[in-house]
Amino acid sequence: MASIFTKIINNEIPSYKIAENNQYIAILDAFPLVKGHVLVIPKQEVDKIFDLDRESYNGLMDFSYDIAKAIEQAIPCLRVGVAVVGLEVPHVHVHLVPLNSMEDINFAKPKLKLDANEMAEITSQIKSYL
Amino acid sequence: MASIFTKIINNEIPSYKIAENNQYIAILDAFPLVKGHVLVIPKQEVDKIFDLDRESYNGLMDFSYDIAKAIEQAIPCLRVGVAVVGLEVPHVHVHLVPLNSMEDINFAKPKLKLDANEMAEITSQIKSYL
Repeated sequence: MASIFTKIINNEIPSYKIAENNQYIAILDAFPLVKGHVLVIPKQEVDKIFDLDRESYNGLMDFSYDIAKAIEQAIPCLRVGVAVVGLEVPHVHVHLVPLNSMEDINFAKPKLKLDANEMAEITSQIKSYL
Repeated sequence: MASIFTKIINNEIPSYKIAENNQYIAILDAFPLVKGHVLVIPKQEVDKIFDLDRESYNGLMDFSYDIAKAIEQAIPCLRVGVAVVGLEVPHVHVHLVPLNSMEDINFAKPKLKLDANEMAEITSQIKSYL
């Protein structure tokens, strides 16, 4: 069965898209740790990041670089953190998380609930720096 | 003042080295979340990962790929996770953490204390897959 990210990539499930090319997509995390929490995802449905071939992995990280720079400009934060865990959705995804404290990247903490207006506004702010 | 990682790179502070080239070094984390927790560090002392120029950043991620593949073979785990937080030591470092659960990459949990024999043994196991 297609992963939830494949369904998002195929536009079967809506998302707040930040950027997209032939190989990768960046969207707002629907269950954000903080405002501006973005996921960067390869369109190829692979479970574990280090099972990507080197070129696809390097392309994913390179694509993430531009997105992270845009987040750092759009969202007030000390820096953007990176996490790849992947024990929940079996489709590689890189978390880019604007950090103001260590707690901001604690995956055990309760997720934010943002309304559609806020999500659209954050998307537009980040995109404006790309 | 030189960061603790610069002192390690200059051999002023000892470490358990996994791999090294002209630009990057991989060492065991002295305060590991789990056995096999490795740090990959650029020799250039830069605080924030996305302040690295694109080439240095991409080189760091590419160097990390080989190290992560070796950890996955050497250490029993479901996969290797990645984290870049950096609010504590102001010198870029990529955490590569063998994961068996989400809790394994919770930076708030107490760190392991491993003795010198264990650290040397883990180093040698990971290096054997490089």
